[in-house]
Amino acid sequence: MQYFIPLRKIIPRKQMKNIIIASTSTLHGGDYLDYLLPELKVHFKDCKTILFIPFARPGGISYEEYTSKVALAFGKIDKNVKGIHEFEDVTKAITNAEGIFTGGGNTFLLVSQLYKNNIMKVLADAVKGGIPYLGTSAGSNICGLTMQTTNDMPIIYPPSFQTLGLIPFNLNPHYLDPDLESKHMGETRETRINEFHSFNNAPVLGLREGSWLDVKGDAIVLKGDLTARLFRKNLLPIEIDSETNVNYIK
Amino acid sequence: MQYFIPLRKIIPRKQMKNIIIASTSTLHGGDYLDYLLPELKVHFKDCKTILFIPFARPGGISYEEYTSKVALAFGKIDKNVKGIHEFEDVTKAITNAEGIFTGGGNTFLLVSQLYKNNIMKVLADAVKGGIPYLGTSAGSNICGLTMQTTNDMPIIYPPSFQTLGLIPFNLNPHYLDPDLESKHMGETRETRINEFHSFNNAPVLGLREGSWLDVKGDAIVLKGDLTARLFRKNLLPIEIDSETNVNYIK
Repeated sequence: MQYFIPLRKIIPRKQMKNIIIASTSTLHGGDYLDYLLPELKVHFKDCKTILFIPFARPGGISYEEYTSKVALAFGKIDKNVKGIHEFEDVTKAITNAEGIFTGGGNTFLLVSQLYKNNIMKVLADAVKGGIPYLGTSAGSNICGLTMQTTNDMPIIYPPSFQTLGLIPFNLNPHYLDPDLESKHMGETRETRINEFHSFNNAPVLGLREGSWLDVKGDAIVLKGDLTARLFRKNLLPIEIDSETNVNYIK
Repeated sequence: MQYFIPLRKIIPRKQMKNIIIASTSTLHGGDYLDYLLPELKVHFKDCKTILFIPFARPGGISYEEYTSKVALAFGKIDKNVKGIHEFEDVTKAITNAEGIFTGGGNTFLLVSQLYKNNIMKVLADAVKGGIPYLGTSAGSNICGLTMQTTNDMPIIYPPSFQTLGLIPFNLNPHYLDPDLESKHMGETRETRINEFHSFNNAPVLGLREGSWLDVKGDAIVLKGDLTARLFRKNLLPIEIDSETNVNYIK
């Protein structure tokens, strides 16, 4: 009897992190993922098929609808997309994936589903092991230490706020500067992050829409045209320039 | 030996709910609680001292600072204020209170502290039993069935999202209409509430700043100059006029 070993399995996977962590999937006036496609072409250059994790279900759309939307975008750079809900064994779906994308939506829902399917650690290990990963919005939020600096509504009670810990700090995607003209008395994003630091030590990077982090091994480089805002406990926030390696943040 | 029964104890308490649930403590350009003071003078007419629950700690201020701020506002209508943190027995502080005010801040923190102190049910029973209650923002959020329609950041992991259930629906305080001019791609408040309804059945009343609910027994009347926005699962949202009794919402 002869055994055929699938080709992909014997390509040694680079044991270094290879992650894009984007504030948003979509820029105002643009199509879904459009502004990132040139990056994604390089990022996923060795992947024919991307495993998509649609758990965050923005606006409550179905996994199928969400996966179709993602497939349409990735089709533009000749990638296939398969939703994790199409697999019977979700753990194997992750460990065998050529590349993984977790889309945005509601972070509480995403985290609940990752725990419910017992794949929070599996996903973290896979990405730490070198499977190229893309996150946008909620899918980026979970790259931090915890989901405690999400902007989302707690529509479902997750078993924990701990997330993937792919980077040694927390993120606030869709970071919004205070609107000085506003007459609304709800808390600004900055006030909310300060409240977080009354009880937690993790630094928080506010990623504005159009910014992303490019993680290659130990480097964590800010990309896009904008600065990002770094909040640390008991320190004044500072602006970080694009192209800065922020791997010193801890 | 002679026993003195404190006078307050023998005044029979009305066994009907008497609650003001306000979207915000402060209107733009106004002082803390100012716009509500004429109402509060009537609401707390039989109280000399208000028990203040400062657990939500907006912006991370201390219980003492927060209580001083509240005392300053209530001083204008000749009420004393005592923070619940000043009591050794917090359960007794609630059951013996003449009137109770829970201030805004972070709802996750407030709910965590209410559970940690074992007073979520005590507080619910006390208010259902007729102790006049005022909530603003986070202190209003907890009057609903759950805290799942808060706008706050999950800075701390509470043991449950269940709250006081003083009214048979959920609230979204500081309700904000979508900004049609905005180029920001984060979810609107309406999108977030729709996501809530993908997984939950409770109706959600979006209370704009300047609106409050006046609960007297079984009546729940919308007050203030503005309409409120009612979201129900699988139905289009509708606007509710001021002075409407919304006790039909279930």
